Amino acid sequence: MRSDRIDHIGVAVKSIEERLRLYRDLLKLELTEIEELPERGLKVAFIKAGDTRIELLEPIAENSQISKFLQTKGEGIHHIAFHVDNISDAIEEALAMDMTPLSKEPQDGAGGTKIVFLHPKSTGGILVELVEGFHREGCSNG
Amino acid sequence: MRSDRIDHIGVAVKSIEERLRLYRDLLKLELTEIEELPERGLKVAFIKAGDTRIELLEPIAENSQISKFLQTKGEGIHHIAFHVDNISDAIEEALAMDMTPLSKEPQDGAGGTKIVFLHPKSTGGILVELVEGFHREGCSNG
Repeated sequence: MRSDRIDHIGVAVKSIEERLRLYRDLLKLELTEIEELPERGLKVAFIKAGDTRIELLEPIAENSQISKFLQTKGEGIHHIAFHVDNISDAIEEALAMDMTPLSKEPQDGAGGTKIVFLHPKSTGGILVELVEGFHREGCSNG
Repeated sequence: MRSDRIDHIGVAVKSIEERLRLYRDLLKLELTEIEELPERGLKVAFIKAGDTRIELLEPIAENSQISKFLQTKGEGIHHIAFHVDNISDAIEEALAMDMTPLSKEPQDGAGGTKIVFLHPKSTGGILVELVEGFHREGCSNG
């Protein structure tokens, strides 16, 4: 298993519109997608930055995961996702290296991707997501 | 002024060697550079990830900035640096948008780059670095 690039950087924000001032208006990066995911209590925006993307995560429900993150940690980086060529191998190899996948099997990400998260305690304080497959326009993969 | 990509993601770590298990050994990303910067109390390692880089920052002096960061916040992401085409324009435009550059003039980064930081309170909780110029091999730009 190997990674070739960062798939996206997830950023918890109180307001996508407010934070687009930095990414879209100041840095002139391209906003490629914005959509609501009511089943996850989230609104997400994707911004292209070279061969990776910034994913802004705004809560639209009080009990969503990002709501809780904002309440305890405030705005900031929520996770970093690496694109990998084989997610099942990634889970096995991570376990063999004493890192902690949050699930034993790959989970379905949006857009047909397969994903798994590694616990921050095993990665140096960063919630690491591993993503197999390619993001299709119009879908988002957490 | 515009950005075309993320130049690097700075990560505060207690031990570069320990964290290379994730980036080099699990993800198979390329470690391109590792060097000590005694004047900044730092050891840094650069890891290539697509068109961007991860910069691991390990303190080698107790009073270094990263030492203090680790003591208060623990290991994790320290800053995100965006490559920009004109750093002086970036400072002017950031000020006009009520963001807070940490210096009024661009600072010299290593490798011949010009840099400025934006205060996290004005960017949504992220210490944002703007970098003009290209990183030369064998030099590092904080």
